[in-house]
Amino acid sequence: MLGYLGPAGTFSHQAALDWSGGKEETTEFKTINAAIRAVNEGKITHAIVPIENSIEGAVNVTLDMLAFDVDLYITGEYVLKISQNLLAARGADDIKKIVSHPQAVGQCAKILNSKYSFADIEYSDSTAAAAKQAASDCSVACIGSKALSDIYGLKIIEPDCGDDKSNSTRFVIIEKTPSTAVTGADKSSIAFTLDNKPGSLYEALKLFKDSGINMTKIESRPVKTHLGTYVFFIDIDGNIDDADVYFALDRVKRHTSFYKFLGSYKKAENV
Amino acid sequence: MLGYLGPAGTFSHQAALDWSGGKEETTEFKTINAAIRAVNEGKITHAIVPIENSIEGAVNVTLDMLAFDVDLYITGEYVLKISQNLLAARGADDIKKIVSHPQAVGQCAKILNSKYSFADIEYSDSTAAAAKQAASDCSVACIGSKALSDIYGLKIIEPDCGDDKSNSTRFVIIEKTPSTAVTGADKSSIAFTLDNKPGSLYEALKLFKDSGINMTKIESRPVKTHLGTYVFFIDIDGNIDDADVYFALDRVKRHTSFYKFLGSYKKAENV
Repeated sequence: MLGYLGPAGTFSHQAALDWSGGKEETTEFKTINAAIRAVNEGKITHAIVPIENSIEGAVNVTLDMLAFDVDLYITGEYVLKISQNLLAARGADDIKKIVSHPQAVGQCAKILNSKYSFADIEYSDSTAAAAKQAASDCSVACIGSKALSDIYGLKIIEPDCGDDKSNSTRFVIIEKTPSTAVTGADKSSIAFTLDNKPGSLYEALKLFKDSGINMTKIESRPVKTHLGTYVFFIDIDGNIDDADVYFALDRVKRHTSFYKFLGSYKKAENV
Repeated sequence: MLGYLGPAGTFSHQAALDWSGGKEETTEFKTINAAIRAVNEGKITHAIVPIENSIEGAVNVTLDMLAFDVDLYITGEYVLKISQNLLAARGADDIKKIVSHPQAVGQCAKILNSKYSFADIEYSDSTAAAAKQAASDCSVACIGSKALSDIYGLKIIEPDCGDDKSNSTRFVIIEKTPSTAVTGADKSSIAFTLDNKPGSLYEALKLFKDSGINMTKIESRPVKTHLGTYVFFIDIDGNIDDADVYFALDRVKRHTSFYKFLGSYKKAENV
């Protein structure tokens, strides 16, 4: 059973269908938090959750939960192209308010701040909840997928109105046990904190450099105790099954005050 | 005229009052984006905007606008302790929905996911908009400052209910011209992107290390064209007026494909 952030018609739903090829049973959750907890508690085998968008950046709840709240592994990733649209009820002609999930609003900042600067912006839990609102109120438009226009009978006012036409979201598949598959095109993810002293991040990155390991991504998040201390999320090329990767990660681990191996898995093909 | 993210009663309003000691005229804006644009267009002299919260992390819109959309400088910073409370109308006793700004919701994730997991969560534009809603609907609670309970006549159901009692937000003051003050306790901020090749971040950090410069913060944001390319925001100790800092930044600049000096300014005392 594959969990995703519902309701039906969200990009997460689309990613779940695409990833499973429509062959797995899927189940929706009201929040990313709930989907991840369901895997942690063994209620479902795995979930597909967004971790990074090419415009909005990191999906904080996913990173924070993987680092601090659960013991789960990333076993795969999937990149979905995102195309946002401004939608409204068929009879709508005097839009006063635009509603959507905060990330969708962020992805359409340019058109909202120029052509639609007169409209009030309101946040919703999901693009589908926004679509439901737009369907029942002719003064409300929403931002979301084309699929939503079918589900809720909306017209498309502004097609593909995101700031960037190459907008995409990277999803990860999370499970209770790490993947042991080795494909030759794998990446590995870790999370760690460092002692708060000058040059400590530099020293950690030097260990990768000296081992010939290519770091493909670095992200920082607060450790939530006070400003100025961060947990770093790093992706590197290679599988922990590879001795070079194994020993490089082991050396990094010995430099950290907190360390978590988040999994080795096959890189998405369409990044 | 000092701009801030309104309406009255937000933590941004509190920060504006604290920073100016109540001695400057302040004016509210509906979004962070609008406050920053008003400075850029010369409509106001400066604005105080949130840039980082100790739990939620970076305030993306502030970072992205400073890097890509405006030519402004950071001339100061102020750290405000944040204390969130669950508030409701005096007659409320059967809460079904909790409303607040997405950051306030994130800051109270633990209590919302445990004691209040039965409640629907809804996002609002501001904590004040949420308070207005709670004041008029006894089934709705909101999350926000104690000041809001006075303004909207709400009772405090859960005082200081944030995940972390040391929750604080760092604000920056932005202006059209950089500060030239040198206080001896300054920091400098830059933003840059690097060629997407192995080890390029390591090489940039090595330049600071070799110059004896202490990096206090690194943050990454997507450049918004495609996944996998990032703009880095780095804070270092020292003022660009100092020759060591000047030459270190100059060397870093020559390593970058995009570079922006964001200002030297006095460090907040209470970080």
